[in-house]
Amino acid sequence: MIVKKASVKFSTTGKVDIVDITERVSGIVDDSDVSDGILNVFVPGATGALTTIECESGLLEDFKDFLEKIIPRGADYKHNLSHADRNGHSHVRASLIGPSITAPVRNGKVVLGIWQHIVFIEMDNRPRQRSLVVTVIGHGKTSGRS
Amino acid sequence: MIVKKASVKFSTTGKVDIVDITERVSGIVDDSDVSDGILNVFVPGATGALTTIECESGLLEDFKDFLEKIIPRGADYKHNLSHADRNGHSHVRASLIGPSITAPVRNGKVVLGIWQHIVFIEMDNRPRQRSLVVTVIGHGKTSGRS
Amino acid sequence: MIVKKASVKFSTTGKVDIVDITERVSGIVDDSDVSDGILNVFVPGATGALTTIECESGLLEDFKDFLEKIIPRGADYKHNLSHADRNGHSHVRASLIGPSITAPVRNGKVVLGIWQHIVFIEMDNRPRQRSLVVTVIGHGKTSGRS
Repeated sequence: MIVKKASVKFSTTGKVDIVDITERVSGIVDDSDVSDGILNVFVPGATGALTTIECESGLLEDFKDFLEKIIPRGADYKHNLSHADRNGHSHVRASLIGPSITAPVRNGKVVLGIWQHIVFIEMDNRPRQRSLVVTVIGHGKTSGRS
Repeated sequence: MIVKKASVKFSTTGKVDIVDITERVSGIVDDSDVSDGILNVFVPGATGALTTIECESGLLEDFKDFLEKIIPRGADYKHNLSHADRNGHSHVRASLIGPSITAPVRNGKVVLGIWQHIVFIEMDNRPRQRSLVVTVIGHGKTSGRS
Repeated sequence: MIVKKASVKFSTTGKVDIVDITERVSGIVDDSDVSDGILNVFVPGATGALTTIECESGLLEDFKDFLEKIIPRGADYKHNLSHADRNGHSHVRASLIGPSITAPVRNGKVVLGIWQHIVFIEMDNRPRQRSLVVTVIGHGKTSGRS
Protein backbone atom coordinates (compact mmCIF):
# COMPACT_ATOMS: atom_id res chain seq x y z
CA MET A 1 0.00 0.00 0.00
CA ILE A 2 1.35 3.37 -1.02
CA VAL A 3 0.59 6.89 0.19
CA LYS A 4 1.76 9.44 -2.36
CA LYS A 5 1.98 13.02 -1.06
CA ALA A 6 2.19 16.09 -3.28
CA SER A 7 1.04 19.67 -3.65
CA VAL A 8 -0.24 21.91 -6.43
CA LYS A 9 0.69 25.58 -6.10
CA PHE A 10 -0.59 28.59 -8.05
CA SER A 11 -1.69 32.21 -7.72
CA THR A 12 -5.23 33.50 -8.11
CA THR A 13 -6.59 36.95 -8.96
CA GLY A 14 -9.34 37.14 -6.36
CA LYS A 15 -12.10 37.54 -8.93
CA VAL A 16 -13.75 34.11 -8.67
CA ASP A 17 -11.04 32.35 -10.62
CA ILE A 18 -11.88 28.82 -11.65
CA VAL A 19 -8.49 27.10 -11.99
CA ASP A 20 -8.32 23.85 -13.96
CA ILE A 21 -5.91 21.61 -12.06
CA THR A 22 -6.73 18.38 -13.90
CA GLU A 23 -3.47 18.12 -15.80
CA ARG A 24 -1.29 18.76 -12.76
CA VAL A 25 -3.24 16.37 -10.54
CA SER A 26 -3.26 13.69 -13.25
CA GLY A 27 0.49 14.10 -13.57
CA ILE A 28 0.91 13.46 -9.85
CA VAL A 29 -1.09 10.24 -10.13
CA ASP A 30 0.87 9.21 -13.25
CA ASP A 31 4.17 9.79 -11.47
CA SER A 32 3.11 7.94 -8.33
CA ASP A 33 3.49 4.21 -7.91
CA VAL A 34 -0.23 3.82 -7.15
CA SER A 35 -2.13 1.54 -9.51
CA ASP A 36 -5.60 1.29 -7.87
CA GLY A 37 -7.08 3.37 -5.09
CA ILE A 38 -8.29 6.91 -4.52
CA LEU A 39 -7.08 10.49 -5.01
CA ASN A 40 -7.94 13.33 -2.63
CA VAL A 41 -7.28 17.02 -3.33
CA PHE A 42 -7.82 19.48 -0.46
CA VAL A 43 -7.53 23.24 0.00
CA PRO A 44 -6.24 24.32 3.41
CA GLY A 45 -8.18 27.56 3.75
CA ALA A 46 -11.74 28.71 4.33
CA THR A 47 -12.27 30.74 1.14
CA GLY A 48 -11.48 28.21 -1.59
CA ALA A 49 -13.37 25.18 -2.89
CA LEU A 50 -13.02 22.16 -5.17
CA THR A 51 -15.44 20.44 -7.51
CA THR A 52 -15.58 18.97 -11.01
CA ILE A 53 -16.99 20.74 -14.07
CA GLU A 54 -16.68 20.84 -17.85
CA CYS A 55 -14.17 23.60 -18.58
CA GLU A 56 -16.20 25.32 -21.30
CA SER A 57 -15.91 29.10 -21.02
CA GLY A 58 -19.65 29.79 -21.14
CA LEU A 59 -20.36 27.19 -18.47
CA LEU A 60 -17.68 28.57 -16.15
CA GLU A 61 -19.43 31.95 -16.41
CA ASP A 62 -22.75 30.23 -15.70
CA PHE A 63 -21.32 28.74 -12.52
CA LYS A 64 -19.98 32.11 -11.37
CA ASP A 65 -23.35 33.70 -12.16
CA PHE A 66 -25.06 31.01 -10.08
CA LEU A 67 -22.81 31.71 -7.07
CA GLU A 68 -23.44 35.45 -7.41
CA LYS A 69 -27.19 34.86 -7.60
CA ILE A 70 -27.57 32.71 -4.51
CA ILE A 71 -24.72 34.24 -2.43
CA PRO A 72 -24.29 37.80 -3.71
CA ARG A 73 -21.17 39.81 -3.08
CA GLY A 74 -21.79 42.95 -1.08
CA ALA A 75 -24.92 41.69 0.61
CA ASP A 76 -25.38 42.41 4.28
CA TYR A 77 -23.18 39.70 5.83
CA LYS A 78 -22.66 39.84 9.60
CA HIS A 79 -19.07 38.68 9.02
CA ASN A 80 -18.39 41.95 7.26
CA LEU A 81 -19.36 44.01 10.33
CA SER A 82 -16.21 42.88 12.14
CA HIS A 83 -13.91 41.96 9.23
CA ALA A 84 -12.60 44.74 7.01
CA ASP A 85 -11.87 42.38 4.12
CA ARG A 86 -15.64 42.11 3.60
CA ASN A 87 -15.47 38.56 2.26
CA GLY A 88 -18.49 37.06 4.02
CA HIS A 89 -19.82 35.91 0.65
CA SER A 90 -16.47 34.17 -0.06
CA HIS A 91 -16.74 32.09 3.11
CA VAL A 92 -20.37 31.09 2.58
CA ARG A 93 -19.67 30.07 -1.03
CA ALA A 94 -16.62 28.01 -0.02
CA SER A 95 -18.49 26.17 2.75
CA LEU A 96 -21.32 25.39 0.34
CA ILE A 97 -19.13 23.83 -2.38
CA GLY A 98 -16.67 22.21 0.04
CA PRO A 99 -12.88 22.03 0.43
CA SER A 100 -12.03 18.73 -1.24
CA ILE A 101 -12.62 16.30 -4.07
CA THR A 102 -12.10 12.55 -4.01
CA ALA A 103 -11.84 10.46 -7.20
CA PRO A 104 -10.84 6.88 -8.04
CA VAL A 105 -7.51 5.72 -9.45
CA ARG A 106 -7.42 2.75 -11.82
CA ASN A 107 -4.41 1.30 -13.67
CA GLY A 108 -2.28 4.20 -12.53
CA LYS A 109 -4.64 6.90 -13.85
CA VAL A 110 -7.25 9.11 -12.18
CA VAL A 111 -10.71 8.21 -13.50
CA LEU A 112 -12.72 11.16 -14.86
CA GLY A 113 -15.40 11.66 -17.50
CA ILE A 114 -14.22 12.92 -20.88
CA TRP A 115 -15.36 16.49 -20.22
CA GLN A 116 -15.06 16.34 -16.44
CA HIS A 117 -12.22 18.44 -15.03
CA ILE A 118 -11.08 18.94 -11.44
CA VAL A 119 -11.17 22.64 -10.60
CA PHE A 120 -10.22 24.88 -7.72
CA ILE A 121 -12.55 27.84 -7.26
CA GLU A 122 -11.06 30.94 -5.68
CA MET A 123 -13.89 32.43 -3.66
CA ASP A 124 -11.81 35.09 -1.87
CA ASN A 125 -12.01 38.70 -3.04
CA ARG A 126 -8.26 39.29 -3.18
CA PRO A 127 -5.35 37.54 -4.94
CA ARG A 128 -4.11 34.49 -3.06
CA GLN A 129 -1.21 32.07 -3.21
CA ARG A 130 -2.77 28.60 -3.02
CA SER A 131 -1.11 25.31 -2.19
CA LEU A 132 -3.47 22.37 -2.54
CA VAL A 133 -2.69 19.15 -0.68
CA VAL A 134 -2.81 16.03 -2.86
CA THR A 135 -2.96 12.48 -1.46
CA VAL A 136 -3.06 9.25 -3.48
CA ILE A 137 -3.66 6.02 -1.54
CA GLY A 138 -3.77 2.54 -2.98
CA HIS A 139 -2.02 -0.55 -4.21
CA GLY A 140 1.32 -0.27 -5.89
CA LYS A 141 1.75 -0.99 -9.57
CA THR A 142 3.55 -4.22 -8.82
CA SER A 143 1.58 -5.57 -5.81
CA GLY A 144 -1.69 -5.92 -7.67
CA ARG A 145 -4.11 -7.48 -5.17
CA SER A 146 -7.68 -6.27 -5.47
CA MET B 1 -4.78 -3.70 3.26
CA ILE B 2 -7.29 -4.35 0.52
CA VAL B 3 -8.48 -2.24 -2.42
CA LYS B 4 -11.78 -3.58 -3.73
CA LYS B 5 -12.76 -2.27 -7.19
CA ALA B 6 -16.26 -2.51 -8.63
CA SER B 7 -18.83 -0.65 -10.70
CA VAL B 8 -22.56 -0.01 -10.59
CA LYS B 9 -24.25 0.31 -13.98
CA PHE B 10 -27.76 1.49 -14.84
CA SER B 11 -29.79 3.58 -17.28
CA THR B 12 -31.48 6.89 -16.50
CA THR B 13 -34.38 8.69 -18.16
CA GLY B 14 -32.91 12.18 -18.26
CA LYS B 15 -35.71 13.68 -16.16
CA VAL B 16 -33.80 14.29 -12.91
CA ASP B 17 -33.85 10.66 -11.87
CA ILE B 18 -32.79 10.02 -8.30
CA VAL B 19 -31.47 6.44 -8.35
CA ASP B 20 -31.14 4.62 -5.04
CA ILE B 21 -27.89 2.65 -5.25
CA THR B 22 -27.66 1.74 -1.56
CA GLU B 23 -28.43 -1.94 -1.96
CA ARG B 24 -25.99 -2.47 -4.81
CA VAL B 25 -23.19 -0.55 -3.11
CA SER B 26 -23.82 -2.33 0.20
CA GLY B 27 -23.62 -5.64 -1.65
CA ILE B 28 -20.22 -4.70 -3.05
CA VAL B 29 -18.95 -3.94 0.46
CA ASP B 30 -20.48 -7.16 1.81
CA ASP B 31 -18.81 -9.21 -0.93
CA SER B 32 -15.42 -7.53 -0.47
CA ASP B 33 -12.87 -8.72 2.06
CA VAL B 34 -12.72 -5.27 3.67
CA SER B 35 -13.63 -5.16 7.35
CA ASP B 36 -12.80 -1.55 8.34
CA GLY B 37 -12.04 1.43 6.14
CA ILE B 38 -13.85 3.68 3.67
CA LEU B 39 -16.08 3.41 0.62
CA ASN B 40 -15.99 5.88 -2.28
CA VAL B 41 -18.54 6.05 -5.10
CA PHE B 42 -17.77 8.34 -8.04
CA VAL B 43 -19.50 9.28 -11.28
CA PRO B 44 -17.19 9.81 -14.25
CA GLY B 45 -19.13 12.54 -16.03
CA ALA B 46 -19.97 16.19 -15.58
CA THR B 47 -23.78 15.95 -15.45
CA GLY B 48 -24.36 13.48 -12.61
CA ALA B 49 -23.99 13.79 -8.85
CA LEU B 50 -23.99 11.76 -5.64
CA THR B 51 -25.31 12.48 -2.16
CA THR B 52 -27.30 10.80 0.62
CA ILE B 53 -31.01 11.32 1.28
CA GLU B 54 -34.03 9.57 2.78
CA CYS B 55 -35.75 7.83 -0.13
CA GLU B 56 -39.27 9.02 0.69
CA SER B 57 -41.17 9.91 -2.47
CA GLY B 58 -42.32 13.33 -1.28
CA LEU B 59 -38.83 14.29 -0.17
CA LEU B 60 -37.30 13.26 -3.49
CA GLU B 61 -39.78 15.60 -5.19
CA ASP B 62 -38.80 18.32 -2.71
CA PHE B 63 -35.15 17.92 -3.64
CA LYS B 64 -35.93 18.13 -7.36
CA ASP B 65 -38.09 21.20 -6.72
CA PHE B 66 -35.20 22.77 -4.83
CA LEU B 67 -32.79 22.20 -7.74
CA GLU B 68 -35.33 23.63 -10.18
CA LYS B 69 -35.82 26.69 -7.96
CA ILE B 70 -32.17 27.67 -7.55
CA ILE B 71 -30.88 26.40 -10.94
CA PRO B 72 -33.89 26.49 -13.29
CA ARG B 73 -33.97 24.56 -16.53
CA GLY B 74 -34.30 26.75 -19.56
CA ALA B 75 -32.81 29.83 -17.97
CA ASP B 76 -30.37 31.88 -19.98
CA TYR B 77 -27.18 29.83 -19.61
CA LYS B 78 -24.15 30.91 -21.66
CA HIS B 79 -23.30 27.21 -22.09
CA ASN B 80 -26.48 26.82 -24.13
CA LEU B 81 -25.39 29.44 -26.67
CA SER B 82 -22.72 27.09 -28.03
CA HIS B 83 -24.11 23.67 -27.03
CA ALA B 84 -27.24 22.40 -28.73
CA ASP B 85 -28.04 19.96 -25.93
CA ARG B 86 -29.00 22.99 -23.81
CA ASN B 87 -27.96 21.34 -20.54
CA GLY B 88 -26.27 24.28 -18.83
CA HIS B 89 -28.51 23.77 -15.82
CA SER B 90 -27.47 20.09 -15.66
CA HIS B 91 -23.80 21.01 -15.38
CA VAL B 92 -24.30 23.71 -12.75
CA ARG B 93 -26.46 21.39 -10.64
CA ALA B 94 -23.91 18.55 -10.87
CA SER B 95 -20.98 20.78 -9.88
CA LEU B 96 -22.96 22.09 -6.91
CA ILE B 97 -23.84 18.67 -5.46
CA GLY B 98 -20.55 17.02 -6.41
CA PRO B 99 -19.45 13.81 -8.16
CA SER B 100 -18.72 11.50 -5.23
CA ILE B 101 -19.69 10.23 -1.81
CA THR B 102 -17.38 8.77 0.83
CA ALA B 103 -18.67 6.70 3.76
CA PRO B 104 -17.10 4.52 6.46
CA VAL B 105 -16.96 0.72 6.50
CA ARG B 106 -17.12 -1.13 9.83
CA ASN B 107 -17.23 -4.88 10.45
CA GLY B 108 -17.61 -5.50 6.74
CA LYS B 109 -20.64 -3.21 6.32
CA VAL B 110 -21.05 0.33 5.00
CA VAL B 111 -22.19 2.61 7.85
CA LEU B 112 -25.34 4.63 7.10
CA GLY B 113 -28.21 6.06 9.13
CA ILE B 114 -31.44 4.04 9.17
CA TRP B 115 -33.17 6.29 6.63
CA GLN B 116 -30.00 7.47 4.87
CA HIS B 117 -29.59 6.12 1.36
CA ILE B 118 -26.81 6.69 -1.17
CA VAL B 119 -28.28 8.11 -4.36
CA PHE B 120 -27.11 9.02 -7.82
CA ILE B 121 -28.84 12.08 -9.26
CA GLU B 122 -29.11 12.24 -13.04
CA MET B 123 -28.87 15.94 -13.83
CA ASP B 124 -28.61 15.56 -17.61
CA ASN B 125 -31.65 16.25 -19.79
CA ARG B 126 -31.41 13.07 -21.85
CA PRO B 127 -31.30 9.35 -21.02
CA ARG B 128 -27.82 8.18 -20.08
CA GLN B 129 -26.02 4.91 -19.44
CA ARG B 130 -24.16 5.40 -16.16
CA SER B 131 -21.29 3.36 -14.75
CA LEU B 132 -20.30 4.49 -11.26
CA VAL B 133 -16.83 3.65 -9.98
CA VAL B 134 -16.78 2.05 -6.53
CA THR B 135 -13.66 1.75 -4.38
CA VAL B 136 -13.43 0.16 -0.92
CA ILE B 137 -10.14 0.56 0.96
CA GLY B 138 -9.31 -0.87 4.36
CA HIS B 139 -8.19 -3.73 6.50
CA GLY B 140 -9.09 -7.24 5.56
CA LYS B 141 -11.54 -9.26 7.60
CA THR B 142 -8.76 -11.44 8.93
CA SER B 143 -5.95 -8.89 9.50
CA GLY B 144 -7.84 -6.84 12.06
CA ARG B 145 -5.34 -4.18 13.22
CA SER B 146 -6.91 -0.80 14.00
CA MET C 1 -0.92 0.76 6.75
CA ILE C 2 -3.17 1.70 9.63
CA VAL C 3 -6.94 2.17 9.86
CA LYS C 4 -7.81 4.17 12.97
CA LYS C 5 -11.50 4.02 13.96
CA ALA C 6 -13.13 6.44 16.38
CA SER C 7 -16.33 8.39 17.03
CA VAL C 8 -17.28 11.88 18.17
CA LYS C 9 -20.47 12.10 20.22
CA PHE C 10 -22.47 15.17 21.28
CA SER C 11 -25.98 16.54 21.69
CA THR C 12 -27.57 19.23 19.56
CA THR C 13 -30.44 21.64 20.23
CA GLY C 14 -32.27 21.26 16.92
CA LYS C 15 -31.97 24.95 16.05
CA VAL C 16 -29.38 24.73 13.26
CA ASP C 17 -26.48 24.19 15.60
CA ILE C 18 -23.07 24.49 14.00
CA VAL C 19 -20.82 22.33 16.17
CA ASP C 20 -17.06 22.87 15.92
CA ILE C 21 -15.51 19.38 16.08
CA THR C 22 -12.01 20.38 14.99
CA GLU C 23 -10.34 19.91 18.36
CA ARG C 24 -11.87 16.48 18.96
CA VAL C 25 -11.12 15.24 15.45
CA SER C 26 -7.57 16.61 15.59
CA GLY C 27 -7.11 14.80 18.90
CA ILE C 28 -8.15 11.52 17.29
CA VAL C 29 -5.56 12.00 14.54
CA ASP C 30 -2.90 13.00 17.10
CA ASP C 31 -3.60 9.89 19.18
CA SER C 32 -3.59 7.56 16.16
CA ASP C 33 -0.44 6.01 14.79
CA VAL C 34 -1.11 7.45 11.33
CA SER C 35 1.58 9.74 9.97
CA ASP C 36 0.46 10.39 6.38
CA GLY C 37 -2.87 9.67 4.75
CA ILE C 38 -6.45 10.91 4.95
CA LEU C 39 -9.14 11.59 7.53
CA ASN C 40 -12.85 11.02 6.90
CA VAL C 41 -15.66 12.19 9.20
CA PHE C 42 -19.18 10.98 8.43
CA VAL C 43 -22.63 11.48 9.95
CA PRO C 44 -24.89 8.42 9.86
CA GLY C 45 -28.22 10.15 9.45
CA ALA C 46 -30.13 12.08 6.80
CA THR C 47 -30.56 15.41 8.64
CA GLY C 48 -26.98 16.35 9.50
CA ALA C 49 -24.09 17.61 7.38
CA LEU C 50 -20.36 18.32 7.49
CA THR C 51 -18.25 21.06 5.94
CA THR C 52 -15.42 23.43 6.85
CA ILE C 53 -15.85 27.09 7.82
CA GLU C 54 -14.19 29.84 9.84
CA CYS C 55 -15.83 29.71 13.27
CA GLU C 56 -16.49 33.46 13.57
CA SER C 57 -19.87 34.09 15.17
CA GLY C 58 -21.10 36.54 12.52
CA LEU C 59 -20.13 34.18 9.71
CA LEU C 60 -21.90 31.23 11.32
CA GLU C 61 -25.06 33.36 11.40
CA ASP C 62 -24.49 34.26 7.75
CA PHE C 63 -24.33 30.58 6.84
CA LYS C 64 -27.55 29.84 8.72
CA ASP C 65 -29.21 32.84 7.04
CA PHE C 66 -28.09 31.47 3.67
CA LEU C 67 -29.64 28.06 4.36
CA GLU C 68 -32.88 29.71 5.49
CA LYS C 69 -32.94 31.87 2.36
CA ILE C 70 -32.52 29.11 -0.22
CA ILE C 71 -34.27 26.28 1.72
CA PRO C 72 -36.73 28.01 4.06
CA ARG C 73 -38.22 26.26 7.06
CA GLY C 74 -41.98 25.96 6.90
CA ALA C 75 -42.21 26.13 3.15
CA ASP C 76 -44.56 23.76 1.39
CA TYR C 77 -42.49 20.55 1.36
CA LYS C 78 -44.20 17.39 0.12
CA HIS C 79 -42.27 15.45 2.78
CA ASN C 80 -44.24 17.33 5.43
CA LEU C 81 -47.58 16.08 4.08
CA SER C 82 -46.82 12.57 5.32
CA HIS C 83 -44.31 13.23 8.12
CA ALA C 84 -45.50 14.95 11.27
CA ASP C 85 -42.01 16.10 12.23
CA ARG C 86 -42.22 18.61 9.37
CA ASN C 87 -38.49 18.55 8.67
CA GLY C 88 -38.51 18.53 4.88
CA HIS C 89 -36.23 21.57 4.90
CA SER C 90 -33.78 19.69 7.19
CA HIS C 91 -33.43 16.84 4.72
CA VAL C 92 -32.97 19.06 1.66
CA ARG C 93 -30.34 21.15 3.46
CA ALA C 94 -28.44 18.04 4.60
CA SER C 95 -28.39 16.48 1.13
CA LEU C 96 -27.15 19.75 -0.33
CA ILE C 97 -24.18 20.16 2.02
CA GLY C 98 -23.39 16.44 2.25
CA PRO C 99 -22.74 13.90 5.01
CA SER C 100 -18.94 13.79 5.15
CA ILE C 101 -15.65 15.65 5.00
CA THR C 102 -12.29 14.27 3.89
CA ALA C 103 -9.00 15.99 4.73
CA PRO C 104 -5.32 15.09 4.48
CA VAL C 105 -3.05 13.94 7.32
CA ARG C 106 0.62 14.89 7.31
CA ASN C 107 3.26 14.19 9.95
CA GLY C 108 0.58 12.88 12.29
CA LYS C 109 -1.61 16.00 12.08
CA VAL C 110 -4.76 16.82 10.12
CA VAL C 111 -4.01 19.58 7.59
CA LEU C 112 -6.34 22.60 7.79
CA GLY C 113 -6.06 26.31 7.05
CA ILE C 114 -5.45 28.59 10.04
CA TRP C 115 -9.08 29.70 10.24
CA GLN C 116 -10.58 26.57 8.70
CA HIS C 117 -12.55 24.43 11.15
CA ILE C 118 -14.39 21.16 10.61
CA VAL C 119 -18.02 21.58 11.64
CA PHE C 120 -21.09 19.43 11.98
CA ILE C 121 -24.32 21.23 11.07
CA GLU C 122 -27.46 20.01 12.79
CA MET C 123 -30.18 20.49 10.19
CA ASP C 124 -32.94 18.68 12.09
CA ASN C 125 -35.61 20.68 13.91
CA ARG C 126 -35.38 18.78 17.19
CA PRO C 127 -32.55 17.98 19.62
CA ARG C 128 -30.50 14.98 18.54
CA GLN C 129 -27.79 12.75 19.96
CA ARG C 130 -25.12 12.54 17.26
CA SER C 131 -22.31 10.04 16.89
CA LEU C 132 -20.00 10.86 14.00
CA VAL C 133 -17.87 8.10 12.51
CA VAL C 134 -14.18 8.98 12.15
CA THR C 135 -11.74 7.02 10.00
CA VAL C 136 -8.03 7.75 9.55
CA ILE C 137 -6.17 5.72 6.92
CA GLY C 138 -2.49 5.94 6.11
CA HIS C 139 1.08 5.02 6.84
CA GLY C 140 2.19 4.48 10.40
CA LYS C 141 4.55 6.89 12.09
CA THR C 142 7.37 4.37 11.95
CA SER C 143 6.87 2.80 8.47
CA GLY C 144 7.39 6.03 6.54
CA ARG C 145 7.23 5.00 2.87
CA SER C 146 5.63 7.62 0.63
